Amino acid sequence: MKLTKKTLHQRLNHTYDVVIVGGGAGGLSAAIYLQRYRLSCLVVEKGRGRSFWMQDLRNYLGLDPETPGRDLLQQGQHHALELGADYLMGFAEEVVDEGDTFAVRVKVGKKDSAYPVFRSKYVIAASGIIDRLPELDDMQNVYDYAGYNLHVCMICDGYEIADTRCGLFVNSEGNINTAFVLNWFTPYITVFTHGLFQVSDEMRHKLQEHGYPLVDQTIRRFLGENHEMTGVELADGSVVKLDTGLVAMGSHYYNEYLKGLDLTWSGQTLETDSMCRTSHPRLFALGDLKVGINQVSIAVADGTLAATAIWRDIRRASSPRRWDANLTKPIGVVT
Amino acid sequence: MKLTKKTLHQRLNHTYDVVIVGGGAGGLSAAIYLQRYRLSCLVVEKGRGRSFWMQDLRNYLGLDPETPGRDLLQQGQHHALELGADYLMGFAEEVVDEGDTFAVRVKVGKKDSAYPVFRSKYVIAASGIIDRLPELDDMQNVYDYAGYNLHVCMICDGYEIADTRCGLFVNSEGNINTAFVLNWFTPYITVFTHGLFQVSDEMRHKLQEHGYPLVDQTIRRFLGENHEMTGVELADGSVVKLDTGLVAMGSHYYNEYLKGLDLTWSGQTLETDSMCRTSHPRLFALGDLKVGINQVSIAVADGTLAATAIWRDIRRASSPRRWDANLTKPIGVVT
Repeated sequence: MKLTKKTLHQRLNHTYDVVIVGGGAGGLSAAIYLQRYRLSCLVVEKGRGRSFWMQDLRNYLGLDPETPGRDLLQQGQHHALELGADYLMGFAEEVVDEGDTFAVRVKVGKKDSAYPVFRSKYVIAASGIIDRLPELDDMQNVYDYAGYNLHVCMICDGYEIADTRCGLFVNSEGNINTAFVLNWFTPYITVFTHGLFQVSDEMRHKLQEHGYPLVDQTIRRFLGENHEMTGVELADGSVVKLDTGLVAMGSHYYNEYLKGLDLTWSGQTLETDSMCRTSHPRLFALGDLKVGINQVSIAVADGTLAATAIWRDIRRASSPRRWDANLTKPIGVVT
Repeated sequence: MKLTKKTLHQRLNHTYDVVIVGGGAGGLSAAIYLQRYRLSCLVVEKGRGRSFWMQDLRNYLGLDPETPGRDLLQQGQHHALELGADYLMGFAEEVVDEGDTFAVRVKVGKKDSAYPVFRSKYVIAASGIIDRLPELDDMQNVYDYAGYNLHVCMICDGYEIADTRCGLFVNSEGNINTAFVLNWFTPYITVFTHGLFQVSDEMRHKLQEHGYPLVDQTIRRFLGENHEMTGVELADGSVVKLDTGLVAMGSHYYNEYLKGLDLTWSGQTLETDSMCRTSHPRLFALGDLKVGINQVSIAVADGTLAATAIWRDIRRASSPRRWDANLTKPIGVVT
């Protein structure tokens, strides 16, 4: 059921099999599988994750390529609830390992917040990432285009960028290297630093050699209408016309709640085995939070893997169900 | 485009980036990704694979749980064709490694067959498996229920089996062990050998201890109507009432066309790395054909992984595209 601040107390004495932090593609897939394995789970979702912002989910098998990410999330939420999963809008602040259980402290509500603590045998970390965007004075101007033709994922949207004049928006010299992958799709690349850092002579030379202009002025605003970005206006009033954009400014990882646990990190992502199990045997990491490719299809499969591994653990530790005489169903042989 | 016996000659002088053997969930996902990476591919599909028979795809995120497998396949085929993939109904008979390319011989058409040979840099083996079913005199009687409440996959449909009287249909003593996993979902298990093999005293004892009746008579037919199986009629005319069934008779693997290559097998499945690459650097294996869990979600993610690995290979071996003066698009700075 959908828990609220008013009803969540009903679950505070319950030990879930699994608390899933994150109700994106990975978390919802895990919830569907766990409930179908007859295990109990709670999904804690803070809202507005990465797939919520996708205007078109162009590469996920089975869905029309114009399906918005939020439709996938809505369908998945409905699916998980129908199967008996619990779902709570809230922000996981801390996970404490209590030995046999985890205690997951959640902040619920922005005003007059409640701080319930839920208990579970396993935790699935599926809280993902959010892409950093250029910081302009008017952020609404950025949101008007981000997820439309101002893309954030080359694997997802390189196809839409193909042979267009593409602005590459970066916040570090390292991220400029994205240009030398992006050029698989288009050679018409202009790199924008928004004045955030100094570009080395070596990199300037490399860009020049490839014919990719470098713009290191501050960006005043994106130009365009109806979510169709057509270029950039710079601080000095000059305009660079563009057909598409790609933001490559890294991501914020929602992993702070895990920092008190002893886990094996690879940068901001978690190392896992082939079933998405981290170095902690009762903690799993999915999708963008684990080492690997950030794609909806991968997160969905990760949900399958983690749920299956947890089911195997719990099943193997349980007594087998026998068809005893005291069970109600009689053996159904008719002669 | 959809190739036919009449049009396929148009592609015989073409070297595809990838020939994908199998147009199920894995193969179609790979085709969508490859085309979006601007690579060329041909999907060779024999028809009527495992997901074609699924009446309800109950655990795939984003689709209503009552979506039939064939809807997923149809949507995926349409999606891949729209992106420019080639698609051919045919049966891959042999893959020969020619060094830089593979030669894939396909049988097209059951009558007056054509045997075209397609060439590609890479091959993705996504031809999957098909479940063995009990062999009765009237196979239509089996098909009437298989994929409905006569299930073939416990991970997929254990939830529907929960607490029902379930017939477990096996063809070897090893497969009887499925009962001791199935009992997570229901204790009301009756095991049917269809008279195919002798059951050891040890196994009889174990079944007895769990209270699971063993029926080693030949099955005459399944009973029921409207695809709802209600029991089994045995050779002696007696009837065993059931609510559900699970067939655990192993699978046929569509992998014969790969047997001439030097690959690392694990039984009938291929060993792969984390990107689905087999021991042959230009051959990838997906879904049910590789070691792992047989689920639609996994196959779809495998398609993503294999396509991405191939794209990386090909991209890294290509010259970078420069924004040269001889390209048509001018640098779009307006001051």
